[in-house]
Amino acid sequence: MAAKRLSSAQDYQRLLDRYDTWLLDCDGVLWQGDRLVDGVPEVLNLLRERKKKIFFVTNNATKSRKNYKKKFDQLGVAAEVEEVFGSAYASAVYISSVMKLPKDKKVYVIGMKGLEEELDEEGIAHIGGTDPADNTLEEFHLKNFEPDPDVGAVLCGLDTSINYTKLSKAFTYLHRNKDCAFLATNTDSTFPSAEGLLPGAGSISAPLTCALGRDPVSIGKPAKTMLDCIRAKYRFDPERTIMVGDRLNTDIEFGKGGGLATLLVLTGITHEWEITGPNPSTTIPDYFTNSIGDLRNAN
Amino acid sequence: MAAKRLSSAQDYQRLLDRYDTWLLDCDGVLWQGDRLVDGVPEVLNLLRERKKKIFFVTNNATKSRKNYKKKFDQLGVAAEVEEVFGSAYASAVYISSVMKLPKDKKVYVIGMKGLEEELDEEGIAHIGGTDPADNTLEEFHLKNFEPDPDVGAVLCGLDTSINYTKLSKAFTYLHRNKDCAFLATNTDSTFPSAEGLLPGAGSISAPLTCALGRDPVSIGKPAKTMLDCIRAKYRFDPERTIMVGDRLNTDIEFGKGGGLATLLVLTGITHEWEITGPNPSTTIPDYFTNSIGDLRNAN
Repeated sequence: MAAKRLSSAQDYQRLLDRYDTWLLDCDGVLWQGDRLVDGVPEVLNLLRERKKKIFFVTNNATKSRKNYKKKFDQLGVAAEVEEVFGSAYASAVYISSVMKLPKDKKVYVIGMKGLEEELDEEGIAHIGGTDPADNTLEEFHLKNFEPDPDVGAVLCGLDTSINYTKLSKAFTYLHRNKDCAFLATNTDSTFPSAEGLLPGAGSISAPLTCALGRDPVSIGKPAKTMLDCIRAKYRFDPERTIMVGDRLNTDIEFGKGGGLATLLVLTGITHEWEITGPNPSTTIPDYFTNSIGDLRNAN
Repeated sequence: MAAKRLSSAQDYQRLLDRYDTWLLDCDGVLWQGDRLVDGVPEVLNLLRERKKKIFFVTNNATKSRKNYKKKFDQLGVAAEVEEVFGSAYASAVYISSVMKLPKDKKVYVIGMKGLEEELDEEGIAHIGGTDPADNTLEEFHLKNFEPDPDVGAVLCGLDTSINYTKLSKAFTYLHRNKDCAFLATNTDSTFPSAEGLLPGAGSISAPLTCALGRDPVSIGKPAKTMLDCIRAKYRFDPERTIMVGDRLNTDIEFGKGGGLATLLVLTGITHEWEITGPNPSTTIPDYFTNSIGDLRNAN
């Protein structure tokens, strides 16, 4: 079915009436890098005034929920830590509660501080990550590397300090121990920075996927894990819940897979022709509009 | 057709009689990292005594042919620079003679000194690579990056100093300019170091492949470019030429694609069950033997 373009005040009003729970992607929807999308504070106020339940559902695993809260604060957007569901948090919940990694096991991390913070919050032991010993461009030699026998999983997220030492250690854990779980916070191929696209978390786990010849278990959107994570904390009626995002293959697929309504905004990665053109994507949202700011036009 | 296992003195003798030109892979065939495979000097002497033409055909693009010569010297193996065909050299030849990159254009390099040396030898301007400015774990910001408008190709090889700055620059060149060529010296997923497997060149270009959603043009085995490169310098009769290698998806595929005979050795990455087991590979060599050293057993 074709996506419905929203344009009139009535269109936006109907949407507000129809959905009680709003899952909002962040990068490309609320902001582009460090630049807030026009009208976001007003729209969030509007949703709150109308007693909508809001969740911020983001694949960005470089920030913990607490860091996210700070980002909201800096941008002048009201938000609570409890409203934020990031793939770093979801990964930690997955490790502790879904795969139930034994307490005496560790996670080897390719990722940044925010990811480590969420693992800490869930009481999951981890190595790698921001450890200075692994953040080096020195030549890596297997003979100088003593693998930690307690590593039971490798978790890979966006890491702007990615290097051959981290990749080689992660590869060694996974290659030598078939029982070691290969996890990715998310597999977004690109990342929308304030100044433009850069390689995303999927590009950081891609070397391991290539070298191992197998795909990671991906936790973030479009995987259901994130929704399970929200559901574990809050009740919501999927029939009256809408996912708002800028990516077809993550946000919109995530919403559809969870039985939610979906709204695509064009402030991020997706162009209108990808859903309305002669060769449209196989993932089509229920609705689309230029920007989440358009919701201000509701009656 | 099933691969023939060579085992008797007669088997090896027949092979020596039948082939005049011997293309030998290096890593996993002649040596494993820095450890020479048993019997290699004797076998090379045997081949030379019998007036065989020898070429060393390697996907390892971290070394130039001159560096390769040094490695042969260090290991006590007689070899000439002219006998060495590496994917670094083949990439330089491809850029200058096949794609004919205009002389006023540059190559952005992800790779090591050996690759830069071969580009220099072919008179190809290049940036990136070992430039200290790009060998950093400092945070990368697009706003501080001024793309060089003369970059007409990105060439990606094994680079143990891989980092987010290099990946982001390479991605930006390729993403913003559809005419910029995306080249890989080779796409071997792993690299056999002396102490064990590590991520290979294919794993280094994998982030770009993921972020761009397209594959590079790969120059090394199994691509025909390497054979074209040898053919441009020497005549040989494919019917009397044999490719010896340890990898089915590079060496053996390369030999078969070029109409050469193929000999798999088991000193590298491939296990015997991969060609004789119940679910054999679709790429089967003509012959296989434990080690190239077995050729000493020829009558």
